[in-house]
Amino acid sequence: METLKGLKRTHYCGDLRMDNVGQEVILNGWVQKKRNLGGLVFVDLRDIRGISQIIFDADVNKDAFEKAEKLGSEYVIAVKGIVRERQSKNPNMATGDIEISATELRVLSKSQTPPIYIKDDDNVSEDKRLKYRFLDLRKPSMQNNLIMRSKVAQIVRQYLSENNFLEIETPFLIKPSPEGARDYLVPSRVNPGKFYALPQSPQLFKQILMVSGMDRYFQIVKCFRDEDLRADRQPEFTQIDCEMSFVDENDVMTMMENMIGRIFKEIHNIDIQLPLKRMTYKEAMDRFGSDKPDTRFAMELTDLSDLVKDCGFGVFSSAANAANSSVRAINAIGGADAFSKKGMKKLEEHAKTYKAKGLAWIKVTEEGIDSPIAKFFTEDEIKAILDRMDAKAGDLILFVADKNKVVYDALGQLRLEVARKMDLIDKNKYNLLWVTEFPLFEEDEETGRMIAMHHPFTCPLDEDIDKLDQEDKTQLRAKAYDMVLNGYELGGGSVRISDEEVQEKMFKALGMSQETANDKFGYLLEAFKYGVPPHAGLAFGFDRLMMLLTGADNIREVIAFPKNQNAICPMTNAPGLPEEGQLEELSIKVDLEEQE
Amino acid sequence: METLKGLKRTHYCGDLRMDNVGQEVILNGWVQKKRNLGGLVFVDLRDIRGISQIIFDADVNKDAFEKAEKLGSEYVIAVKGIVRERQSKNPNMATGDIEISATELRVLSKSQTPPIYIKDDDNVSEDKRLKYRFLDLRKPSMQNNLIMRSKVAQIVRQYLSENNFLEIETPFLIKPSPEGARDYLVPSRVNPGKFYALPQSPQLFKQILMVSGMDRYFQIVKCFRDEDLRADRQPEFTQIDCEMSFVDENDVMTMMENMIGRIFKEIHNIDIQLPLKRMTYKEAMDRFGSDKPDTRFAMELTDLSDLVKDCGFGVFSSAANAANSSVRAINAIGGADAFSKKGMKKLEEHAKTYKAKGLAWIKVTEEGIDSPIAKFFTEDEIKAILDRMDAKAGDLILFVADKNKVVYDALGQLRLEVARKMDLIDKNKYNLLWVTEFPLFEEDEETGRMIAMHHPFTCPLDEDIDKLDQEDKTQLRAKAYDMVLNGYELGGGSVRISDEEVQEKMFKALGMSQETANDKFGYLLEAFKYGVPPHAGLAFGFDRLMMLLTGADNIREVIAFPKNQNAICPMTNAPGLPEEGQLEELSIKVDLEEQE
Repeated sequence: METLKGLKRTHYCGDLRMDNVGQEVILNGWVQKKRNLGGLVFVDLRDIRGISQIIFDADVNKDAFEKAEKLGSEYVIAVKGIVRERQSKNPNMATGDIEISATELRVLSKSQTPPIYIKDDDNVSEDKRLKYRFLDLRKPSMQNNLIMRSKVAQIVRQYLSENNFLEIETPFLIKPSPEGARDYLVPSRVNPGKFYALPQSPQLFKQILMVSGMDRYFQIVKCFRDEDLRADRQPEFTQIDCEMSFVDENDVMTMMENMIGRIFKEIHNIDIQLPLKRMTYKEAMDRFGSDKPDTRFAMELTDLSDLVKDCGFGVFSSAANAANSSVRAINAIGGADAFSKKGMKKLEEHAKTYKAKGLAWIKVTEEGIDSPIAKFFTEDEIKAILDRMDAKAGDLILFVADKNKVVYDALGQLRLEVARKMDLIDKNKYNLLWVTEFPLFEEDEETGRMIAMHHPFTCPLDEDIDKLDQEDKTQLRAKAYDMVLNGYELGGGSVRISDEEVQEKMFKALGMSQETANDKFGYLLEAFKYGVPPHAGLAFGFDRLMMLLTGADNIREVIAFPKNQNAICPMTNAPGLPEEGQLEELSIKVDLEEQE
Repeated sequence: METLKGLKRTHYCGDLRMDNVGQEVILNGWVQKKRNLGGLVFVDLRDIRGISQIIFDADVNKDAFEKAEKLGSEYVIAVKGIVRERQSKNPNMATGDIEISATELRVLSKSQTPPIYIKDDDNVSEDKRLKYRFLDLRKPSMQNNLIMRSKVAQIVRQYLSENNFLEIETPFLIKPSPEGARDYLVPSRVNPGKFYALPQSPQLFKQILMVSGMDRYFQIVKCFRDEDLRADRQPEFTQIDCEMSFVDENDVMTMMENMIGRIFKEIHNIDIQLPLKRMTYKEAMDRFGSDKPDTRFAMELTDLSDLVKDCGFGVFSSAANAANSSVRAINAIGGADAFSKKGMKKLEEHAKTYKAKGLAWIKVTEEGIDSPIAKFFTEDEIKAILDRMDAKAGDLILFVADKNKVVYDALGQLRLEVARKMDLIDKNKYNLLWVTEFPLFEEDEETGRMIAMHHPFTCPLDEDIDKLDQEDKTQLRAKAYDMVLNGYELGGGSVRISDEEVQEKMFKALGMSQETANDKFGYLLEAFKYGVPPHAGLAFGFDRLMMLLTGADNIREVIAFPKNQNAICPMTNAPGLPEEGQLEELSIKVDLEEQE
């Protein structure tokens, strides 16, 4: 084992500039590339800040030169040398104006040939990248992602601290909760047969902190959900979690948009226009078919129900006349020629993924219209539709007729798909907005029961509080808000119920008995007996925020050691088998038969 | 539910001063105290910053006055009023120069009579405090502890960020590890029969991050150990975890002592003298009988073995002549009269807790010596002992003769106990030092096997690397260092092995087969094949640091929601029972019989 003695770095490789010319420097790093050229050895030496070119010349130091000849990729070395101006500068390299003439070399650690290349376009499978994550993280893109993540975390903490938020740690070993997603469980050894759960969010604890007078709380904190993994989900994920006392929704939204504004300014030097636009949930659904609208392009939804309610096309007229149903359309301007027959088929399949029964369309051409459904309409009806859709020759109108939920969903997704296919999205734009006044409840698709759209502590709009016990609760709105960026939900929050009676009504509305509520959230209800401040909060998904800030394709690119889609870490092979006797200590047994 | 409309706070209660006189302010907070006096209602209103006195006068606003008369303790209210100078100022209150003449009052939330008082000296049991933690956290001491904790966390992050450390999150769902303490396990649903473990520390991941070129890493992170709980242990605890590349132990110690220096400066305005003193493990044991010496007082250990090896007292002479054994003593200066017969008995019991077989002592009086063992010694022997102990009339000498391990332990603990009893410890002193050159191995008391004193990745001293395969490994020293404050280990770390071969030797020395090592740490060994920088790090116990900075008695006072000694949260009743069907999904069963 070689020590660094006498060869500790004086500079980072990536930091050397013309100002350093003439200085003796010591660099420590990895051999990115080595080549022999004209009797010299050229080494590109890499550290966290970048790369410098080192030149070994037998005439300068024979010993160093000979050692350099034997260097391989990814060897770790320490080099002493003199910085000098390069004869042929490399404008593509931050250090391209200089080079280091080496006077001393020590090999600190050798390397076998790495199984993956240390460069961004290595084109290996993700599982291989995750298996060799220790090498994958040497790539500039991954280093930059983690550097930016660290910076953003500091900006967030700095901002929130300046604004009197206290960072308070909430527990990781908590009581299992029936709300929300599936808990990860942790068997208790000291309390046999009992289990802790890992928190899905610190929701209840942050509310308790407000009750305890902590005034403003934040935490950048891991949360856990044992859900089936999709492209953008991880078993553990990180939230920027905030809560404020003595505020309303406007205070929270203002505080949080200023924070996001500061992040964009400091990270990308972009001035986000504040205050952010706000849009009610209803408007977002009506215009974009989504509660997280991508507003970088238009192609908004248009309701045609009134125009088609008496038309000859049964699919349209029945949807137009049914309750909670409608016929709506989007106009893909100039899209008539953008989709072949096969392309149209794919769009229909896309719509069907979102439960549309089919996809009706009209292509507008110079000669008139081209549409499989044209025959069901009068000329006047067609004209009225085209007028309302503002359709011109070359445009493509896409219709969905169904229950509103399906119409919004399918048409909202079609809108995104068409925009992607037609390349309508400006990738350099960051469109941020608030979506507000979310429904308080939604129907559980399986059971038909009312469930809380956000969580059972979300406060109804003032004018809806009295409606908590009415039959139809679907129209009730919450003091809930999501921040949306380019079609992604960055974060969401709400004003919380701060009144024991309203909270009890809420549990009742959710079909939860007083007993169950007490069993699960008794301590919150108990706390609410002793003076509760009005409070509200918000949580951002930190992984997703970083994905959007870095421009990465998925959140695994901004997480140092993510799990794959089987919840496995290919590097460490977690999960694994427990030690012998460990399960007995925990009073549990593996029981694989139950699975079959 | 009352809203804040029109009555959002303009100031914090604790912030008002003479400068605010004449201003109209709005305060939001909790009623700390209400009293009627001379036809007025006086309310002490409390928020996170402190307390202001509000005066309700029926002549100013009858409605507000009448509402104020009905206020109870811990009601949450919003008050508008005019700040004015107090006639009889209260110098004990930060806001004692002013009062607020209320013009408007709104009750935001009522309170039942709290089950515990909201004041520091409430004298209720800790379990009751933890059950009502939402009220307990309203106490000034608890709020100040959490405020200071938040501040220290920000100072740490600021300092480390300035010094190019990246904050990188390591996973919480990791592979079970056989090293160290007992893991908390988390059954995997997706991988039936397999388990994640919660990390005992991010040790392996931070080393992997160094291998991946991240250069400098830190994290303030929860760690988990399923150990039996003592006064200062929690199932989950927080570490300030750091690692650096291309450094040696001196770089880490300098970096870290400067950080601690900054914390003391910013929190207590104390200038810690840097660099900190350093003491080898051997010196610490010889002088203080402890690897975490409390150096706020002297009373050092003195080796008397050479003086007593031929004496008539068998206990002494045999210990003085046996291998790895000795006779040592401390001099409790002026302690001859400090301990009654009963007090001496207690000291002996204390020594026995640490495995001493008994406690020999000499009291030095003006008339000579008083000692049960005097008869075994010649006058010359007694004189030599007293001389070496620098003993004068009034002093008390305490002896332990045994194996060195027992002598150090028992005498080191006696030293602390005597100092406490004799009140020798200056509570306002912060004595910081480094203890270095820890043994690389220690003997497992149960199995007699060599185990790593820190962990198996700790680098031996350069001169001891070649001794890794020799028979007696107890003398090998590690490049390991602990920072000690007033007798507590604040944190510890080491230079890591950065060489695959040395690491393999280390595993072998620990009796771990290559196969086992590969199974458990294969990914680290694999990573070590591709270029490893020299690296070293350290982790501080954040809870303990905060306990010492706040002057709290135990770490539960600096944790918002700690568990009690049965690993239960009395507020939420965690752990609890899982939902129906949840264990089946996880392919596990509770099996309580195994326990019996």
